[in-house]
Amino acid sequence: MSGSLVVVGTGPGKAGLITPATAEVLAHATDLVGYGPYLDRIPCRIGQRRHASDNGVELERARLALSLAAAGRQVAVVSGGDPGVFAMAAAVFEAVDAGDPSWRDLDIRVEPGVTAMLAAAAEAGAPLGGDFCAISLSDNLKTWSTIERRLTAAAEADFVIALYNPASKARPHQLGQAFDLLRGVKPKETPVLFVRAAGTAEACVVVTSLGAADPSCADMRTLVIVGASTTRQVGRWIYTPRSERGAAS
Amino acid sequence: MSGSLVVVGTGPGKAGLITPATAEVLAHATDLVGYGPYLDRIPCRIGQRRHASDNGVELERARLALSLAAAGRQVAVVSGGDPGVFAMAAAVFEAVDAGDPSWRDLDIRVEPGVTAMLAAAAEAGAPLGGDFCAISLSDNLKTWSTIERRLTAAAEADFVIALYNPASKARPHQLGQAFDLLRGVKPKETPVLFVRAAGTAEACVVVTSLGAADPSCADMRTLVIVGASTTRQVGRWIYTPRSERGAAS
Repeated sequence: MSGSLVVVGTGPGKAGLITPATAEVLAHATDLVGYGPYLDRIPCRIGQRRHASDNGVELERARLALSLAAAGRQVAVVSGGDPGVFAMAAAVFEAVDAGDPSWRDLDIRVEPGVTAMLAAAAEAGAPLGGDFCAISLSDNLKTWSTIERRLTAAAEADFVIALYNPASKARPHQLGQAFDLLRGVKPKETPVLFVRAAGTAEACVVVTSLGAADPSCADMRTLVIVGASTTRQVGRWIYTPRSERGAAS
Repeated sequence: MSGSLVVVGTGPGKAGLITPATAEVLAHATDLVGYGPYLDRIPCRIGQRRHASDNGVELERARLALSLAAAGRQVAVVSGGDPGVFAMAAAVFEAVDAGDPSWRDLDIRVEPGVTAMLAAAAEAGAPLGGDFCAISLSDNLKTWSTIERRLTAAAEADFVIALYNPASKARPHQLGQAFDLLRGVKPKETPVLFVRAAGTAEACVVVTSLGAADPSCADMRTLVIVGASTTRQVGRWIYTPRSERGAAS
């Protein structure tokens, strides 16, 4: 039997947000490869091998998965969220690109999932109702000046902005710098959402404004959404109207 | 029993991409409210009422759903994809905002889903591997100059660009105008993907370049992805490397 590799995402956390297509891949894989805490979410199956690794070794993990598939195993590479958004799918293709040429002939597939931004938006209402962008604030893989350029462009063109990886122990100050930059472009009244643990039983939404936003509200489990000029509150919800032509009709 | 309203998305098309959480909402609703073709995807249940409506009457549909919930019904508002991305969730909150003040006290919730952009990316590899944005090319709800401003900003700041609603019978020329604009900012070699019917059994990916992209390849079921400067091909896949710091390490 020839090997295969499917990159899947287990969604934001709760089992109800793992798609049936992904659950089926997980059920039939001979080998699961992923970051330990993501593998821990998946029920054990007899005979299925688990290859847990630490955070920050994505390319090494991708190479292991490709080697296993090349050896005839049915491999699932397990991300959180959607595997194509700041997750393992890109790492797998990077490893193919730089690796054994025979890996290009492997049966490789990506299964989409629910990314954190969508779960966070759903917890708060519909803040992504208009055009939006997703920016990772981590400068491990790009320069801070690239991030600043994208934040400025997104603010000037009035996108709703979803910030992935807003803070970590190694990077406590960048979200504050991002808010400072955005305050130079956008009104202080712009709604800002801190959504922690979206799509889990512990989900928590803090609604504030760009002027008042306290970067220490964010941790590694937080997704930050900065509204567009039209983003507004109604009752306990935040939403961005579909129409930018004045009053909705 | 007091009423409730849950806005759900049935994903890009195939049943394997409807989350269990959404399936549960659909199973327990007394009333399904949505665009006819989306309701047609859902198995019938005895006693469950269906309120199908045409395209383009989102606010009217939202008001009907809110009225039913206010009358004590358990209502599911059914979108395709994710309900928060160019879909019904924003319309529901617009209707709450402009409607009966008592609607603000209703039990309203949004369930996230798999939006078309994620399914399209998965079909092609990992083109959304870096920072990205989503722009609807429809000018029904915003001016074309707003769209041009966002396309220019996204291109200049080197986002991967996902184009929703790239073409319809009423708007056959806008995708060509968007490509022309992007050609003035981005290299002609930039990868462009036309992904039709992503996340269904009929999925089809066309890979081309910005210089050669033919707007007539897109229809209402197509999602277009325009790469960043780093987006590249390996084997039959397109991906955007996570690292923008030269060679991935």
